[in-house]
Amino acid sequence: MPLLKSWVESANAADCPFPLNNLPYGVFSTPDLSARCGVAIGDMILDLKRAEADGVIAQSGAAVFAGPAWNAFMALGRDRWAGLRNRLTALLSDGSDGQTALSALLVPMADATMHLPIQVAEYTDFYAGRNHAFNVGTMFRGAENALPPNWLHIPIGYNGRASSVVVSGTDIRRPWGQLKGPNDDRPRFAPSQRFDIELEMGAIVGQPSSGPITVQEADDNIFGYVLLNDWSARDIQAWEYQPLGPFQSKATATSISPWIVTAAALEPFRCDTPEREVPLLAHLQDAGPALFDIDLRVTLAPEGKAATTIAETNYNVMYYSAAQQLAHHTTSGCPMRVGDLLGSGTISGPDKTARGSLLELSWGGKEPLTLDSGDTRSFIEDGDTLTLAGAARGDGFTIGFGTCVGTVRPALDDPYTRG
Amino acid sequence: MPLLKSWVESANAADCPFPLNNLPYGVFSTPDLSARCGVAIGDMILDLKRAEADGVIAQSGAAVFAGPAWNAFMALGRDRWAGLRNRLTALLSDGSDGQTALSALLVPMADATMHLPIQVAEYTDFYAGRNHAFNVGTMFRGAENALPPNWLHIPIGYNGRASSVVVSGTDIRRPWGQLKGPNDDRPRFAPSQRFDIELEMGAIVGQPSSGPITVQEADDNIFGYVLLNDWSARDIQAWEYQPLGPFQSKATATSISPWIVTAAALEPFRCDTPEREVPLLAHLQDAGPALFDIDLRVTLAPEGKAATTIAETNYNVMYYSAAQQLAHHTTSGCPMRVGDLLGSGTISGPDKTARGSLLELSWGGKEPLTLDSGDTRSFIEDGDTLTLAGAARGDGFTIGFGTCVGTVRPALDDPYTRG
Repeated sequence: MPLLKSWVESANAADCPFPLNNLPYGVFSTPDLSARCGVAIGDMILDLKRAEADGVIAQSGAAVFAGPAWNAFMALGRDRWAGLRNRLTALLSDGSDGQTALSALLVPMADATMHLPIQVAEYTDFYAGRNHAFNVGTMFRGAENALPPNWLHIPIGYNGRASSVVVSGTDIRRPWGQLKGPNDDRPRFAPSQRFDIELEMGAIVGQPSSGPITVQEADDNIFGYVLLNDWSARDIQAWEYQPLGPFQSKATATSISPWIVTAAALEPFRCDTPEREVPLLAHLQDAGPALFDIDLRVTLAPEGKAATTIAETNYNVMYYSAAQQLAHHTTSGCPMRVGDLLGSGTISGPDKTARGSLLELSWGGKEPLTLDSGDTRSFIEDGDTLTLAGAARGDGFTIGFGTCVGTVRPALDDPYTRG
Repeated sequence: MPLLKSWVESANAADCPFPLNNLPYGVFSTPDLSARCGVAIGDMILDLKRAEADGVIAQSGAAVFAGPAWNAFMALGRDRWAGLRNRLTALLSDGSDGQTALSALLVPMADATMHLPIQVAEYTDFYAGRNHAFNVGTMFRGAENALPPNWLHIPIGYNGRASSVVVSGTDIRRPWGQLKGPNDDRPRFAPSQRFDIELEMGAIVGQPSSGPITVQEADDNIFGYVLLNDWSARDIQAWEYQPLGPFQSKATATSISPWIVTAAALEPFRCDTPEREVPLLAHLQDAGPALFDIDLRVTLAPEGKAATTIAETNYNVMYYSAAQQLAHHTTSGCPMRVGDLLGSGTISGPDKTARGSLLELSWGGKEPLTLDSGDTRSFIEDGDTLTLAGAARGDGFTIGFGTCVGTVRPALDDPYTRG
């Protein structure tokens, strides 16, 4: 598929992340416009609330784009997802007679504030990267016991905390927590000293289910994808995670990028999961290629200094797809809802420079990174800005995710002082 | 405090679970009345939607009792919680001049269908019973490693799945899942054979918080308590829980009783947590007695047969209070929301007959229970009805929780057949 040309000129540049082929969905506001649904095209945002009110986008029934979340639209189902994408593609195409009506509904992206694109129903985080699981397992349990016995049979996951999901750009406060190092006599309560990122993709569930669903049905129920940074306090995690898993170490914040890149836009970039080391049981077997070829990059910028790229990898290295994760999520009859968010797990490639966490990049702090500024890093320091970026690269066009950014602010002096 | 007498005569019986001292909050409907908020008094429910509309209960601003959840009222804060309780106590007291106006707003409990009393924002399950943790740890890891090293320092918890919370009376479908016994070569996908209950109390968070809060603040933010049965598939759990904790084993369903017994009603029953085996860090220390003296009972009735009491215990045996759990939940800055539900963890007393799960009662299936009917049970069989009951017993009155009931239905023949 070539670049689709739009009458919005900025969308036609070869390096534009938001060409007509993409059409990612977000929620934006400006000083004059309340938070509402919009679609990115070039360096502009089409205001879908006004498009709907004006009848440019025909909708039956209640307004679904007026509110600050895509949930109401997602709930309408796949036919309507396809219908909107087709309509927007037609209206924004070069030569469309929609240009006059729509031009007045475009807002410069530079003037907009982005918000969470969905109301997150519940948030689940997986552990589906083979290299990440092996690296972390090696550090925690030794190379021989690195991969848990169940890992090759089920996409291991745990429930996270939906209330902690924030949009890119939100500052992240270094957490306090209970810590106990291996040589400490007893735990203490202190700010985390091993605060970290996890480079992930987030899959957004757009249709509900009330019992077990197949991998194909799961794939069909995924509305789109975002970049996701699952901020992790490694020292809190090491002390708390046995026997019931990570809890406060993962509850400070999870950042997501503001633009939902739809599954439809990613169709040309589908690719297979890797060959299975042991066969999966029937209910988890692939129903077709369900990973995506998406280049990913992480940069770290110390306060007031330039950013250094610290990792480059690709979503296609994962062992389990989001569709397999969602199918597994439903096996016990667990009801899934519109707006559920599934984190892929940390995406680490096989190379040392392709690791999606500082824990792996600095090998638990034993091999600190040297940044372009000359600073070294084992874990995040106060004032550091961490940025994830992602893009699927087609022939003459790019399906960009934009960025997922967070700056880490110092821990509170006294966490029990209000205000 | 003695029994408070009401003009609703049934509320004055010595064994009535819902005297004027209690006033628990629920959501009910009848064939004629949509789901709405109500308060139990004797064998009647006072319709708070109509009471509010009629001006009997003065409310400023928007109607908060008309919808099918207590969240809107909880969000108004503690002063309003106290105000409503005071007003209801006055109106329903023997000799009140509210009798005429209110009599028309009473609905026989027998005619009502009960619903979930809250919209569950997120659900967290803890592991705060010393005996339960020791029993389960002994079975899984041996007596010497029974209690994890962190257990005496933090109330261990994990995030559960809010979408799986159902109201008492909802049938529970035996789940399928991936299973692998210690002697199996490889896992298989099959219905759970070790399906179990967990006897717990649920604490309902009634006020939001956005950073770490103290144990006292946490106690203040708890609106009330319910009975909670955290249905658990032990065979799924054993295979999946390392390293990130329980996931699908706990996602089939969690049942709660329909009546929220308020923290205010439980005030006379406060009691201390047990003496600490090691001192807690300052931020988790008790701020006063925050457990409650609540008798708890579990019965099991095979299909078509009488129920047998299989466990009797008390909430006062827990090591951590809900206030300590909620305070711990916020340490990393995790935002808490109105409607968050916290499971206490399984409540097992020191005696063999005081254990709150079949896993413990049958010691992993090695010591099956014999029921009054002559049937034996290691785990739940299809058609079994499990009932939790709870009550705080005062001098001449009872603060009853009612019951939390669920009947287990056979697993689906083929979980991937729709409809």
